[in-house]
Amino acid sequence: MNLIKGPTGRTRLYPLFGDPIIYVRSPEFFTRGMIARGQDAMCIPMEVSDHALDPFMKGISVVPNVDGLLITMPHKFNAFTYCATGSETSKRLNVVSVMRRNADGSWHGDMLDGDAFVKAQIDHGAKPGGAKALLLGAGGAGSAIAISLLQAGVRELIIHDVSAERVDRLLETIADLAGGRARAGDADPTGCDMVCNATPMGMDGKDPLPVDASLLRPTMFVGDVIAGHDETPLLRAAREAGCGTANGDHMVEAVQTIMLDFMLNRSA
Amino acid sequence: MNLIKGPTGRTRLYPLFGDPIIYVRSPEFFTRGMIARGQDAMCIPMEVSDHALDPFMKGISVVPNVDGLLITMPHKFNAFTYCATGSETSKRLNVVSVMRRNADGSWHGDMLDGDAFVKAQIDHGAKPGGAKALLLGAGGAGSAIAISLLQAGVRELIIHDVSAERVDRLLETIADLAGGRARAGDADPTGCDMVCNATPMGMDGKDPLPVDASLLRPTMFVGDVIAGHDETPLLRAAREAGCGTANGDHMVEAVQTIMLDFMLNRSA
Repeated sequence: MNLIKGPTGRTRLYPLFGDPIIYVRSPEFFTRGMIARGQDAMCIPMEVSDHALDPFMKGISVVPNVDGLLITMPHKFNAFTYCATGSETSKRLNVVSVMRRNADGSWHGDMLDGDAFVKAQIDHGAKPGGAKALLLGAGGAGSAIAISLLQAGVRELIIHDVSAERVDRLLETIADLAGGRARAGDADPTGCDMVCNATPMGMDGKDPLPVDASLLRPTMFVGDVIAGHDETPLLRAAREAGCGTANGDHMVEAVQTIMLDFMLNRSA
Repeated sequence: MNLIKGPTGRTRLYPLFGDPIIYVRSPEFFTRGMIARGQDAMCIPMEVSDHALDPFMKGISVVPNVDGLLITMPHKFNAFTYCATGSETSKRLNVVSVMRRNADGSWHGDMLDGDAFVKAQIDHGAKPGGAKALLLGAGGAGSAIAISLLQAGVRELIIHDVSAERVDRLLETIADLAGGRARAGDADPTGCDMVCNATPMGMDGKDPLPVDASLLRPTMFVGDVIAGHDETPLLRAAREAGCGTANGDHMVEAVQTIMLDFMLNRSA
Protein backbone atom coordinates (compact mmCIF):
# COMPACT_ATOMS: atom_id res chain seq x y z
CA MET A 1 0.00 0.00 0.00
CA ASN A 2 1.24 3.45 -0.92
CA LEU A 3 0.47 5.12 2.43
CA ILE A 4 2.06 8.42 3.38
CA LYS A 5 1.52 11.11 5.98
CA GLY A 6 -1.10 13.56 4.79
CA PRO A 7 -0.18 17.11 3.83
CA THR A 8 0.22 19.73 6.55
CA GLY A 9 0.54 23.50 6.49
CA ARG A 10 4.31 23.03 6.40
CA THR A 11 4.43 20.66 3.42
CA ARG A 12 6.82 21.74 0.67
CA LEU A 13 5.44 21.32 -2.84
CA TYR A 14 6.98 19.93 -6.04
CA PRO A 15 4.30 20.24 -8.73
CA LEU A 16 4.63 18.03 -11.80
CA PHE A 17 2.97 19.79 -14.73
CA GLY A 18 2.10 18.79 -18.27
CA ASP A 19 -0.74 17.55 -20.44
CA PRO A 20 -1.85 14.78 -20.31
CA ILE A 21 -1.03 14.31 -16.66
CA ILE A 22 -3.06 11.32 -15.45
CA TYR A 23 -0.46 8.72 -16.46
CA VAL A 24 2.47 10.25 -14.55
CA ARG A 25 3.99 8.22 -11.72
CA SER A 26 6.21 10.80 -10.05
CA PRO A 27 3.54 12.02 -7.60
CA GLU A 28 3.76 8.57 -6.00
CA PHE A 29 7.46 7.79 -6.46
CA PHE A 30 8.88 11.23 -5.80
CA THR A 31 6.69 11.82 -2.74
CA ARG A 32 7.74 8.48 -1.20
CA GLY A 33 11.37 9.27 -2.03
CA MET A 34 11.13 12.65 -0.31
CA ILE A 35 9.54 11.09 2.76
CA ALA A 36 12.27 8.42 2.82
CA ARG A 37 14.76 11.29 2.99
CA GLY A 38 12.96 12.81 5.97
CA GLN A 39 11.23 15.62 4.08
CA ASP A 40 7.66 16.91 4.63
CA ALA A 41 7.29 17.29 0.87
CA MET A 42 4.91 16.20 -1.86
CA CYS A 43 4.84 15.97 -5.63
CA ILE A 44 1.42 16.94 -6.96
CA PRO A 45 0.11 16.59 -10.53
CA MET A 46 -1.01 19.78 -12.28
CA GLU A 47 -2.62 19.61 -15.71
CA VAL A 48 -1.23 22.49 -17.77
CA SER A 49 -1.98 22.68 -21.48
CA ASP A 50 0.34 24.18 -24.06
CA HIS A 51 -1.25 27.66 -24.10
CA ALA A 52 -1.54 27.79 -20.29
CA LEU A 53 2.20 27.68 -19.56
CA ASP A 54 2.77 31.41 -19.14
CA PRO A 55 0.05 32.16 -16.56
CA PHE A 56 0.86 28.88 -14.81
CA MET A 57 4.57 29.70 -14.47
CA LYS A 58 3.86 33.25 -13.32
CA GLY A 59 1.39 31.96 -10.74
CA ILE A 60 3.39 29.04 -9.36
CA SER A 61 6.54 31.15 -9.09
CA VAL A 62 4.95 33.48 -6.50
CA VAL A 63 4.21 30.56 -4.12
CA PRO A 64 7.27 30.32 -1.84
CA ASN A 65 6.51 26.81 -0.54
CA VAL A 66 6.83 25.50 -4.09
CA ASP A 67 10.48 24.44 -3.93
CA GLY A 68 10.75 22.66 -7.25
CA LEU A 69 8.97 21.77 -10.48
CA LEU A 70 8.90 18.58 -12.55
CA ILE A 71 8.20 19.23 -16.21
CA THR A 72 6.62 16.85 -18.70
CA MET A 73 5.17 17.12 -22.20
CA PRO A 74 4.48 19.50 -23.87
CA HIS A 75 6.48 21.99 -21.80
CA LYS A 76 10.08 20.78 -21.70
CA PHE A 77 11.24 23.23 -24.36
CA ASN A 78 9.27 26.30 -23.37
CA ALA A 79 9.76 25.95 -19.62
CA PHE A 80 13.49 26.60 -20.06
CA THR A 81 12.73 30.25 -20.82
CA TYR A 82 11.57 30.66 -17.19
CA CYS A 83 14.97 29.57 -15.81
CA ALA A 84 17.43 32.23 -14.67
CA THR A 85 20.20 29.61 -14.56
CA GLY A 86 20.62 26.07 -15.91
CA SER A 87 22.92 23.06 -16.22
CA GLU A 88 25.15 22.65 -19.26
CA THR A 89 22.85 19.99 -20.75
CA SER A 90 19.77 22.17 -20.28
CA LYS A 91 21.55 25.13 -21.88
CA ARG A 92 22.80 23.02 -24.80
CA LEU A 93 19.25 21.90 -25.54
CA ASN A 94 17.20 24.78 -24.14
CA VAL A 95 15.21 22.03 -22.45
CA VAL A 96 14.43 21.28 -18.81
CA SER A 97 12.84 18.34 -17.00
CA VAL A 98 13.27 19.81 -13.50
CA MET A 99 13.66 23.18 -11.82
CA ARG A 100 14.63 24.14 -8.30
CA ARG A 101 14.80 27.53 -6.58
CA ASN A 102 17.96 29.60 -6.54
CA ALA A 103 18.64 31.53 -3.33
CA ASP A 104 16.87 34.59 -4.77
CA GLY A 105 13.74 32.58 -5.64
CA SER A 106 14.48 32.39 -9.37
CA TRP A 107 14.57 29.02 -11.15
CA HIS A 108 17.55 26.77 -11.93
CA GLY A 109 16.82 24.15 -14.61
CA ASP A 110 18.26 20.79 -15.55
CA MET A 111 17.43 18.00 -17.98
CA LEU A 112 17.67 14.56 -16.40
CA ASP A 113 15.63 12.44 -18.83
CA GLY A 114 18.54 11.32 -21.00
CA ASP A 115 20.64 9.89 -18.20
CA ALA A 116 17.55 8.29 -16.67
CA PHE A 117 16.61 6.63 -19.96
CA VAL A 118 20.11 5.26 -20.53
CA LYS A 119 20.31 4.09 -16.90
CA ALA A 120 17.01 2.20 -17.34
CA GLN A 121 18.35 0.49 -20.51
CA ILE A 122 21.57 -0.54 -18.77
CA ASP A 123 19.70 -1.69 -15.65
CA HIS A 124 17.65 -4.02 -17.87
CA GLY A 125 20.51 -5.44 -19.92
CA ALA A 126 21.45 -2.99 -22.68
CA LYS A 127 25.14 -2.27 -23.38
CA PRO A 128 25.42 1.15 -25.02
CA GLY A 129 29.22 1.10 -25.13
CA GLY A 130 30.16 0.47 -28.78
CA ALA A 131 26.53 -0.04 -29.81
CA LYS A 132 24.72 1.10 -32.93
CA ALA A 133 21.56 2.86 -31.75
CA LEU A 134 18.38 4.01 -33.50
CA LEU A 135 16.71 6.95 -31.76
CA LEU A 136 13.10 7.69 -32.67
CA GLY A 137 12.10 11.24 -31.79
CA ALA A 138 14.23 14.37 -31.59
CA GLY A 139 12.03 16.34 -29.17
CA GLY A 140 12.84 17.22 -25.58
CA ALA A 141 13.36 13.69 -24.30
CA GLY A 142 14.91 12.46 -27.56
CA SER A 143 17.49 15.23 -27.61
CA ALA A 144 18.54 14.50 -24.05
CA ILE A 145 18.73 10.77 -24.82
CA ALA A 146 20.94 11.49 -27.84
CA ILE A 147 23.42 13.32 -25.60
CA SER A 148 23.35 10.60 -22.96
CA LEU A 149 23.78 7.80 -25.54
CA LEU A 150 26.80 9.60 -26.96
CA GLN A 151 28.20 10.15 -23.48
CA ALA A 152 27.61 6.43 -22.78
CA GLY A 153 29.81 5.59 -25.77
CA VAL A 154 27.58 4.47 -28.62
CA ARG A 155 29.53 3.82 -31.84
CA GLU A 156 26.80 5.06 -34.17
CA LEU A 157 23.61 7.02 -33.52
CA ILE A 158 20.86 7.20 -36.15
CA ILE A 159 18.19 9.77 -35.39
CA HIS A 160 14.72 9.68 -36.94
CA ASP A 161 11.85 12.13 -36.49
CA VAL A 162 8.81 13.06 -38.58
CA SER A 163 10.39 16.51 -38.67
CA ALA A 164 13.67 16.41 -40.61
CA GLU A 165 14.29 19.97 -39.48
CA ARG A 166 14.15 18.86 -35.85
CA VAL A 167 16.73 16.13 -36.56
CA ASP A 168 19.03 18.62 -38.31
CA ARG A 169 18.77 21.03 -35.40
CA LEU A 170 19.63 18.27 -32.93
CA LEU A 171 22.58 17.06 -35.06
CA GLU A 172 23.92 20.60 -35.08
CA THR A 173 23.51 20.92 -31.32
CA ILE A 174 25.40 17.71 -30.57
CA ALA A 175 27.96 17.90 -33.42
CA ASP A 176 30.98 18.54 -31.17
CA LEU A 177 29.97 15.80 -28.76
CA ALA A 178 29.17 13.28 -31.53
CA GLY A 179 32.39 13.76 -33.48
CA GLY A 180 30.88 12.14 -36.60
CA ARG A 181 29.04 9.31 -34.80
CA ALA A 182 25.51 10.75 -35.30
CA ARG A 183 23.42 11.08 -38.48
CA ALA A 184 19.83 11.33 -39.66
CA GLY A 185 18.12 8.16 -40.88
CA ASP A 186 14.91 6.22 -41.48
CA ALA A 187 12.94 4.41 -38.78
CA ASP A 188 14.68 1.17 -39.76
CA PRO A 189 16.28 -0.81 -36.92
CA THR A 190 18.15 -3.20 -39.22
CA GLY A 191 21.65 -3.75 -37.86
CA CYS A 192 21.05 -1.78 -34.67
CA ASP A 193 21.83 -2.98 -31.14
CA MET A 194 19.48 -0.50 -29.47
CA VAL A 195 16.13 0.94 -30.52
CA CYS A 196 15.00 3.89 -28.42
CA ASN A 197 11.49 5.31 -28.71
CA ALA A 198 11.33 8.92 -27.59
CA THR A 199 8.11 9.74 -29.46
CA PRO A 200 4.61 9.77 -27.90
CA MET A 201 3.54 6.97 -30.28
CA GLY A 202 2.04 4.25 -28.10
CA MET A 203 0.19 6.52 -25.68
CA ASP A 204 -2.96 5.96 -27.72
CA GLY A 205 -3.67 2.26 -28.39
CA LYS A 206 -4.59 3.16 -31.99
CA ASP A 207 -1.14 4.60 -32.76
CA PRO A 208 0.92 2.77 -35.42
CA LEU A 209 4.23 1.37 -34.14
CA PRO A 210 7.16 3.80 -34.46
CA VAL A 211 9.16 1.05 -36.23
CA ASP A 212 8.19 -1.93 -38.41
CA ALA A 213 7.86 -4.82 -35.93
CA SER A 214 8.90 -7.39 -38.55
CA LEU A 215 12.39 -5.85 -38.60
CA LEU A 216 13.05 -6.41 -34.87
CA ARG A 217 15.65 -9.09 -34.02
CA PRO A 218 16.55 -10.76 -30.66
CA THR A 219 19.94 -9.01 -30.59
CA MET A 220 18.23 -5.62 -30.33
CA PHE A 221 17.41 -3.96 -27.01
CA VAL A 222 14.25 -1.86 -27.26
CA GLY A 223 13.39 0.98 -24.87
CA ASP A 224 10.40 3.27 -24.63
CA VAL A 225 9.94 6.60 -22.83
CA ILE A 226 6.17 6.16 -22.47
CA ALA A 227 5.23 5.71 -18.80
CA GLY A 228 2.02 4.58 -17.17
CA HIS A 229 1.02 2.24 -20.02
CA ASP A 230 2.86 -0.89 -18.80
CA GLU A 231 3.97 -2.70 -21.96
CA THR A 232 3.39 -0.45 -24.97
CA PRO A 233 2.56 -2.06 -28.37
CA LEU A 234 6.19 -1.46 -29.42
CA LEU A 235 7.56 -3.23 -26.36
CA ARG A 236 5.12 -6.11 -26.76
CA ALA A 237 6.27 -6.58 -30.35
CA ALA A 238 9.89 -6.34 -29.18
CA ARG A 239 9.38 -8.94 -26.46
CA GLU A 240 7.64 -11.26 -28.93
CA ALA A 241 10.66 -10.82 -31.26
CA GLY A 242 12.96 -11.89 -28.41
CA CYS A 243 14.38 -8.45 -27.60
CA GLY A 244 15.28 -7.18 -24.15
CA THR A 245 13.11 -4.19 -23.20
CA ALA A 246 12.83 -1.30 -20.75
CA ASN A 247 9.65 0.74 -20.49
CA GLY A 248 8.92 4.28 -19.43
CA ASP A 249 8.15 3.21 -15.88
CA HIS A 250 11.71 1.87 -15.60
CA MET A 251 12.93 5.27 -16.77
CA VAL A 252 10.72 6.99 -14.20
CA GLU A 253 12.21 4.75 -11.51
CA ALA A 254 15.74 5.57 -12.67
CA VAL A 255 15.09 9.29 -12.63
CA GLN A 256 13.80 9.37 -9.05
CA THR A 257 17.15 9.21 -7.29
CA ILE A 258 18.67 11.72 -9.70
CA MET A 259 15.72 14.08 -9.22
CA LEU A 260 15.74 13.87 -5.41
CA ASP A 261 19.46 14.66 -5.39
CA PHE A 262 18.84 17.61 -7.70
CA MET A 263 15.95 19.03 -5.69
CA LEU A 264 17.62 18.75 -2.28
CA ASN A 265 20.91 20.25 -3.47
CA ARG A 266 19.79 23.87 -3.34
CA SER A 267 23.08 25.40 -4.50
CA ALA A 268 23.12 26.40 -8.15
CA MET B 1 -1.35 8.25 12.57
CA ASN B 2 -2.55 10.46 9.75
CA LEU B 3 -1.78 8.08 6.89
CA ILE B 4 -3.32 8.53 3.47
CA LYS B 5 -2.77 7.18 -0.02
CA GLY B 6 -0.10 9.19 -1.78
CA PRO B 7 -0.94 11.46 -4.70
CA THR B 8 -1.33 9.95 -8.18
CA GLY B 9 -1.58 11.47 -11.65
CA ARG B 10 -5.36 11.43 -11.21
CA THR B 11 -5.49 13.25 -7.88
CA ARG B 12 -7.83 16.26 -7.83
CA LEU B 13 -6.41 19.31 -6.08
CA TYR B 14 -7.94 21.74 -3.59
CA PRO B 15 -5.24 24.31 -2.80
CA LEU B 16 -5.58 26.29 0.42
CA PHE B 17 -3.85 29.64 -0.05
CA GLY B 18 -2.95 32.50 2.24
CA ASP B 19 -0.10 33.98 4.27
CA PRO B 20 0.96 32.78 6.79
CA ILE B 21 0.10 29.23 5.79
CA ILE B 22 2.08 26.94 8.09
CA TYR B 23 -0.58 26.90 10.86
CA VAL B 24 -3.49 25.78 8.70
CA ARG B 25 -5.07 22.41 9.46
CA SER B 26 -7.27 21.92 6.40
CA PRO B 27 -4.61 20.08 4.37
CA GLU B 28 -4.90 17.27 6.91
CA PHE B 29 -8.61 17.45 7.78
CA PHE B 30 -9.99 18.21 4.33
CA THR B 31 -7.83 15.57 2.63
CA ARG B 32 -8.94 12.88 5.10
CA GLY B 33 -12.55 14.00 4.66
CA MET B 34 -12.28 13.73 0.88
CA ILE B 35 -10.74 10.26 1.14
CA ALA B 36 -13.53 9.20 3.54
CA ARG B 37 -15.97 10.20 0.81
CA GLY B 38 -14.18 8.02 -1.73
CA GLN B 39 -12.37 10.82 -3.56
CA ASP B 40 -8.79 10.76 -4.92
CA ALA B 41 -8.38 14.37 -3.81
CA MET B 42 -5.99 16.41 -1.73
CA CYS B 43 -5.89 19.80 -0.05
CA ILE B 44 -2.42 21.34 -0.41
CA PRO B 45 -1.08 24.49 1.30
CA MET B 46 0.12 27.31 -0.94
CA GLU B 47 1.76 30.38 0.55
CA VAL B 48 0.43 33.42 -1.31
CA SER B 49 1.22 36.90 -0.04
CA ASP B 50 -1.03 39.91 -0.46
CA HIS B 51 0.60 41.25 -3.63
CA ALA B 52 0.85 37.79 -5.23
CA LEU B 53 -2.90 37.15 -5.45
CA ASP B 54 -3.41 38.19 -9.05
CA PRO B 55 -0.70 36.07 -10.71
CA PHE B 56 -1.59 33.19 -8.37
CA MET B 57 -5.29 33.26 -9.29
CA LYS B 58 -4.55 33.55 -13.01
CA GLY B 59 -2.12 30.64 -12.79
CA ILE B 60 -4.17 28.28 -10.65
CA SER B 61 -7.30 28.89 -12.73
CA VAL B 62 -5.69 27.37 -15.87
CA VAL B 63 -5.02 24.04 -14.10
CA PRO B 64 -8.11 21.89 -14.78
CA ASN B 65 -7.42 19.32 -12.05
CA VAL B 66 -7.72 22.10 -9.47
CA ASP B 67 -11.40 21.60 -8.60
CA GLY B 68 -11.66 23.99 -5.68
CA LEU B 69 -9.86 26.59 -3.58
CA LEU B 70 -9.83 27.25 0.15
CA ILE B 71 -9.07 30.88 0.98
CA THR B 72 -7.52 32.23 4.16
CA MET B 73 -6.00 35.53 5.29
CA PRO B 74 -5.27 37.99 3.73
CA HIS B 75 -7.24 37.07 0.61
CA LYS B 76 -10.86 36.57 1.66
CA PHE B 77 -11.95 39.99 0.44
CA ASN B 78 -9.95 40.23 -2.78
CA ALA B 79 -10.48 36.65 -3.91
CA PHE B 80 -14.20 37.36 -4.38
CA THR B 81 -13.37 39.46 -7.44
CA TYR B 82 -12.24 36.26 -9.19
CA CYS B 83 -15.67 34.61 -8.77
CA ALA B 84 -18.09 34.63 -11.69
CA THR B 85 -20.92 33.56 -9.36
CA GLY B 86 -21.39 33.44 -5.58
CA SER B 87 -23.70 32.60 -2.70
CA GLU B 88 -25.93 35.28 -1.17
CA THR B 89 -23.65 35.58 1.88
CA SER B 90 -20.55 35.95 -0.28
CA LYS B 91 -22.24 38.59 -2.40
CA ARG B 92 -23.52 40.48 0.65
CA LEU B 93 -19.97 40.69 2.02
CA ASN B 94 -17.88 40.49 -1.16
CA VAL B 95 -15.96 37.83 0.75
CA VAL B 96 -15.24 34.17 0.04
CA SER B 97 -13.72 31.33 2.06
CA VAL B 98 -14.17 28.68 -0.65
CA MET B 99 -14.51 28.45 -4.42
CA ARG B 100 -15.49 25.58 -6.67
CA ARG B 101 -15.64 25.32 -10.46
CA ASN B 102 -18.75 26.14 -12.42
CA ALA B 103 -19.43 23.92 -15.44
CA ASP B 104 -17.61 26.42 -17.69
CA GLY B 105 -14.49 26.38 -15.46
CA SER B 106 -15.19 29.77 -13.85
CA TRP B 107 -15.33 30.09 -10.06
CA HIS B 108 -18.33 29.98 -7.72
CA GLY B 109 -17.64 31.45 -4.27
CA ASP B 110 -19.12 31.02 -0.83
CA MET B 111 -18.29 32.18 2.70
CA LEU B 112 -18.61 29.39 5.26
CA ASP B 113 -16.58 30.77 8.18
CA GLY B 114 -19.46 32.38 10.02
CA ASP B 115 -21.61 29.27 10.22
CA ALA B 116 -18.56 27.19 11.12
CA PHE B 117 -17.61 29.57 13.95
CA VAL B 118 -21.13 29.60 15.39
CA LYS B 119 -21.39 25.79 15.06
CA ALA B 120 -18.11 25.44 17.01
CA GLN B 121 -19.43 27.70 19.79
CA ILE B 122 -22.70 25.75 20.03
CA ASP B 123 -20.87 22.40 19.90
CA HIS B 124 -18.84 23.51 22.94
CA GLY B 125 -21.71 24.89 25.00
CA ALA B 126 -22.57 28.40 23.81
CA LYS B 127 -26.23 29.38 23.39
CA PRO B 128 -26.45 32.22 20.86
CA GLY B 129 -30.26 32.36 20.91
CA GLY B 130 -31.16 35.49 22.90
CA ALA B 131 -27.53 36.18 23.80
CA LYS B 132 -25.67 39.46 23.99
CA ALA B 133 -22.50 39.03 21.94
CA LEU B 134 -19.30 41.02 21.59
CA LEU B 135 -17.59 40.55 18.24
CA LEU B 136 -13.97 41.61 17.93
CA GLY B 137 -12.92 42.18 14.33
CA ALA B 138 -15.00 43.24 11.35
CA GLY B 139 -12.78 41.75 8.63
CA GLY B 140 -13.64 38.81 6.41
CA ALA B 141 -14.22 36.25 9.16
CA GLY B 142 -15.75 38.79 11.55
CA SER B 143 -18.27 39.96 9.00
CA ALA B 144 -19.39 36.42 8.27
CA ILE B 145 -19.62 35.67 11.99
CA ALA B 146 -21.79 38.77 12.47
CA ILE B 147 -24.26 37.46 9.90
CA SER B 148 -24.26 33.96 11.38
CA LEU B 149 -24.71 35.25 14.95
CA LEU B 150 -27.69 37.32 13.82
CA GLN B 151 -29.12 34.34 11.95
CA ALA B 152 -28.60 32.24 15.11
CA GLY B 153 -30.79 34.68 17.04
CA VAL B 154 -28.53 36.87 19.18
CA ARG B 155 -30.44 39.58 21.03
CA GLU B 156 -27.68 42.17 20.80
CA LEU B 157 -24.47 42.30 18.78
CA ILE B 158 -21.69 44.73 19.67
CA ILE B 159 -18.98 45.01 17.02
CA HIS B 160 -15.51 46.33 17.74
CA ASP B 161 -12.61 46.83 15.35
CA VAL B 162 -9.53 49.08 15.34
CA SER B 163 -11.06 50.53 12.18
CA ALA B 164 -14.31 52.34 13.00
CA GLU B 165 -14.90 52.68 9.27
CA ARG B 166 -14.80 48.89 8.87
CA VAL B 167 -17.41 48.53 11.63
CA ASP B 168 -19.66 51.15 10.01
CA ARG B 169 -19.39 49.41 6.66
CA LEU B 170 -20.33 46.06 8.23
CA LEU B 171 -23.27 47.60 10.12
CA GLU B 172 -24.55 49.01 6.87
CA THR B 173 -24.16 45.67 5.11
CA ILE B 174 -26.14 43.77 7.76
CA ALA B 175 -28.65 46.50 8.66
CA ASP B 176 -31.68 44.73 7.17
CA LEU B 177 -30.75 41.43 8.78
CA ALA B 178 -29.95 43.00 12.18
CA GLY B 179 -33.15 45.00 12.47
CA GLY B 180 -31.64 47.22 15.18
CA ARG B 181 -29.85 44.45 17.09
CA ALA B 182 -26.30 45.41 16.01
CA ARG B 183 -24.18 48.43 16.97
CA ALA B 184 -20.56 49.56 17.22
CA GLY B 185 -18.88 49.42 20.63
CA ASP B 186 -15.72 49.18 22.69
CA ALA B 187 -13.79 45.97 23.33
CA ASP B 188 -15.59 45.64 26.69
CA PRO B 189 -17.22 42.27 27.38
CA THR B 190 -19.11 43.48 30.46
CA GLY B 191 -22.63 42.08 30.39
CA CYS B 192 -22.04 39.90 27.35
CA ASP B 193 -22.88 36.19 27.08
CA MET B 194 -20.51 35.58 24.17
CA VAL B 195 -17.11 37.06 23.29
CA CYS B 196 -15.96 36.27 19.77
CA ASN B 197 -12.41 37.04 18.62
CA ALA B 198 -12.23 37.40 14.86
CA THR B 199 -8.98 39.40 14.86
CA PRO B 200 -5.50 37.93 14.27
CA MET B 201 -4.44 39.02 17.77
CA GLY B 202 -3.01 35.94 19.46
CA MET B 203 -1.15 34.55 16.45
CA ASP B 204 2.00 36.19 17.78
CA GLY B 205 2.68 35.37 21.43
CA LYS B 206 3.65 39.01 22.00
CA ASP B 207 0.21 40.32 20.97
CA PRO B 208 -1.84 42.08 23.65
CA LEU B 209 -5.18 40.41 24.42
CA PRO B 210 -8.07 41.67 22.27
CA VAL B 211 -10.10 42.26 25.49
CA ASP B 212 -9.15 43.09 29.08
CA ALA B 213 -8.89 39.69 30.78
CA SER B 214 -9.95 41.11 34.15
CA LEU B 215 -13.40 41.81 32.71
CA LEU B 216 -14.12 38.17 31.78
CA ARG B 217 -16.76 36.37 33.87
CA PRO B 218 -17.71 32.66 34.10
CA THR B 219 -21.08 33.32 32.44
CA MET B 220 -19.31 34.38 29.24
CA PHE B 221 -18.50 31.95 26.43
CA VAL B 222 -15.31 32.94 24.61
CA GLY B 223 -14.43 31.84 21.10
CA ASP B 224 -11.42 32.46 18.93
CA VAL B 225 -10.91 32.10 15.17
CA ILE B 226 -7.15 31.53 15.47
CA ALA B 227 -6.27 27.97 14.48
CA GLY B 228 -3.09 25.99 14.91
CA HIS B 229 -2.08 27.68 18.18
CA ASP B 230 -3.99 25.37 20.56
CA GLU B 231 -5.08 27.61 23.46
CA THR B 232 -4.46 31.25 22.55
CA PRO B 233 -3.61 33.73 25.34
CA LEU B 234 -7.22 34.98 25.17
CA LEU B 235 -8.66 31.50 25.61
CA ARG B 236 -6.25 30.71 28.44
CA ALA B 237 -7.37 33.85 30.24
CA ALA B 238 -11.00 32.92 29.54
CA ARG B 239 -10.56 29.39 30.89
CA GLU B 240 -8.85 30.75 34.01
CA ALA B 241 -11.82 33.11 34.45
CA GLY B 242 -14.17 30.10 34.32
CA CYS B 243 -15.54 30.70 30.83
CA GLY B 244 -16.45 28.03 28.30
CA THR B 245 -14.26 28.28 25.22
CA ALA B 246 -13.95 27.16 21.61
CA ASN B 247 -10.75 27.67 19.66
CA GLY B 248 -9.97 28.05 15.99
CA ASP B 249 -9.25 24.36 15.60
CA HIS B 250 -12.82 23.62 16.69
CA MET B 251 -13.99 26.04 14.01
CA VAL B 252 -11.77 24.32 11.45
CA GLU B 253 -13.33 20.99 12.46
CA ALA B 254 -16.82 22.42 12.13
CA VAL B 255 -16.14 23.84 8.69
CA GLN B 256 -14.89 20.54 7.24
CA THR B 257 -18.27 18.90 6.67
CA ILE B 258 -19.71 22.13 5.28
CA MET B 259 -16.73 22.55 2.93
CA LEU B 260 -16.80 18.97 1.67
CA ASP B 261 -20.51 19.31 0.90
CA PHE B 262 -19.83 22.57 -0.93
CA MET B 263 -16.93 21.22 -3.00
CA LEU B 264 -18.64 18.00 -4.07
CA ASN B 265 -21.89 19.75 -5.05
CA ARG B 266 -20.70 20.98 -8.41
CA SER B 267 -23.92 22.72 -9.44
CA ALA B 268 -23.93 26.48 -8.98
